[in-house]
Amino acid sequence: MEKYDFKLAVLGFGNVGQAFAKLLLEKREEIIHKFGCRVKVVAISTGSRGSLVNSCGIDLEKACMDMERLQRFDEKSIDFSRMNSMEIARTVDYDVLVELTPLKIFSGQPAIDHIEAALIRKKHTISANKGPIAWAYDSLKDLAEKQGVKFYFETTVMDGTPVFNLVDETLKLCRVTEVKGILNSTTNFVLEELAKGKSYDDVISEGKKRGFVEADPSMDIEGWDAAAKTAALLNVLMGAGITPCDVERKGIEDIALEQIKEADARGNVIKLVCAGTIENGKVKASVSPKELPKGTLFAGISGTTSVVSITTDLMGTISVVEHDPEIQQTGYGVFSDLLRVITNTQH
Amino acid sequence: MEKYDFKLAVLGFGNVGQAFAKLLLEKREEIIHKFGCRVKVVAISTGSRGSLVNSCGIDLEKACMDMERLQRFDEKSIDFSRMNSMEIARTVDYDVLVELTPLKIFSGQPAIDHIEAALIRKKHTISANKGPIAWAYDSLKDLAEKQGVKFYFETTVMDGTPVFNLVDETLKLCRVTEVKGILNSTTNFVLEELAKGKSYDDVISEGKKRGFVEADPSMDIEGWDAAAKTAALLNVLMGAGITPCDVERKGIEDIALEQIKEADARGNVIKLVCAGTIENGKVKASVSPKELPKGTLFAGISGTTSVVSITTDLMGTISVVEHDPEIQQTGYGVFSDLLRVITNTQH
Repeated sequence: MEKYDFKLAVLGFGNVGQAFAKLLLEKREEIIHKFGCRVKVVAISTGSRGSLVNSCGIDLEKACMDMERLQRFDEKSIDFSRMNSMEIARTVDYDVLVELTPLKIFSGQPAIDHIEAALIRKKHTISANKGPIAWAYDSLKDLAEKQGVKFYFETTVMDGTPVFNLVDETLKLCRVTEVKGILNSTTNFVLEELAKGKSYDDVISEGKKRGFVEADPSMDIEGWDAAAKTAALLNVLMGAGITPCDVERKGIEDIALEQIKEADARGNVIKLVCAGTIENGKVKASVSPKELPKGTLFAGISGTTSVVSITTDLMGTISVVEHDPEIQQTGYGVFSDLLRVITNTQH
Repeated sequence: MEKYDFKLAVLGFGNVGQAFAKLLLEKREEIIHKFGCRVKVVAISTGSRGSLVNSCGIDLEKACMDMERLQRFDEKSIDFSRMNSMEIARTVDYDVLVELTPLKIFSGQPAIDHIEAALIRKKHTISANKGPIAWAYDSLKDLAEKQGVKFYFETTVMDGTPVFNLVDETLKLCRVTEVKGILNSTTNFVLEELAKGKSYDDVISEGKKRGFVEADPSMDIEGWDAAAKTAALLNVLMGAGITPCDVERKGIEDIALEQIKEADARGNVIKLVCAGTIENGKVKASVSPKELPKGTLFAGISGTTSVVSITTDLMGTISVVEHDPEIQQTGYGVFSDLLRVITNTQH
């Protein structure tokens, strides 16, 4: 097998980007051995910590080390560049764009523009950013098909756990008729802590300390994060053609201890459930707190664990559970998409 | 896209074979449209109900109808043949062998011989029979690789639920370090009924009436079915190179109501758990009744529902649950393997 180069441009280099880079370093030889290709990162951009560009391949080990040591790329490095993400997407010579820039939950931008720029140039594209899938999936998918390139985004829901790739690769010709999931760990954490009798404010501040709750928790608490994931899931799996605004959304901000206790007395627990069903031929999407009977699969999903159940015409219902993921699993999601691009373009 | 023919020889035509045939009929146009090929069944064998052979393609609709109406193939049909499975495997001109003959749990034969005969002739092979995977996986896999053909067997564990194809297609470069599952519905049913205070004999006879328990229940109750599935899982996912006899096996025959009550008092339920771990560099396989804390994923798996948890170096632990499968899901397992053969040989 003749070896060939596979050139990546990576936009964004936070925790996910660094976890992905470490997998590339760790698995470099195995990729050459199994797939017959050398993966080279030719560009990395960040918002405010500099960029690196080198058409022969960046020193990825040094890039990771600098980011850990200096919290930015080394301005004295010969690869250092002031190019921004869009300039890299538009001008650098790469084979695959890896979009890892921070999520803008109410627009999906600028990630959508980055992806579009790559697809227009007939470059394969991987996104770990759920914004584009939640806001602009149909047009991006159509563009990728028209251009004859791959567009994968496994990481956008449940990190590297196979969901989109699972349906695509292993449930061929199945039509998805229903999707249900518990996909937001912040609300999982908050509901569990409230059930212990703690006050809402105490739970939020404890959650922030322990890293379960974001600085601004409203996106999670009000169900926006779950709505974005729901839109992404349903756009891809059910052809819903919706945005997060089309998801009937109710957060957990009004759930008080009393309600949790009442549910408990009925043998139930309360969880924030994402759902997509077909009603009158149209996909109906919702996110809302639901009472679930104890002892059932969904009631047992706690902490950072998440679940998605997929019902199809041919395979009934199957569920996939991701147990307590770490950042490495998110990095693997991007890595697995890359391996899928390599596999599916080799023939 | 130019259309080409894909010729199947199907060995065995019980419930699974008929469910598979119905999917072929139902999805005929979609397969032509999406994959550009016409699937033709050129031979079907049964043990005692006749065989059909026609190099231009059997009338599958009539074959299904005859089997339903006459419980055998029509001797007056021009396709009727007295060829047995092995003769078909060895002599008919086909592209894919589909091995669906009844399981012989203590040898894996004659299915192993059928598969070998096909692989020697460089034919792709699909097996829904777990015997060959439990007893002879390594040699069959090596033979398939040497001959440059595909060998798939998704249906052997958890019907059509993606397990083997999931790891192969979506967890690339992951090394499986642990496997755990609840994979036998008879023992699930028996333990649940015993817990209600019923006698062992009553449970077995009720289970037989309701179709949950086989005529000879010992293979399930003593853990042999679970051991065969465990051997299959660990041979494929962990390279164990074992047979069902190498699985440390304890059935549920000694579990009495008292034990179930004691477990209950500790907040636990008893389930027959299959497991594979690595100890001192070797795969250790076991099947045994285990106490599981209520509220956890495994404790909630009841009736015909099953679960497998797969732990890998790169993706942590993910679990896949199959909910109350019907025979159609088993048929889909075979069908999905066929689509995988078509996809992976098209380039």
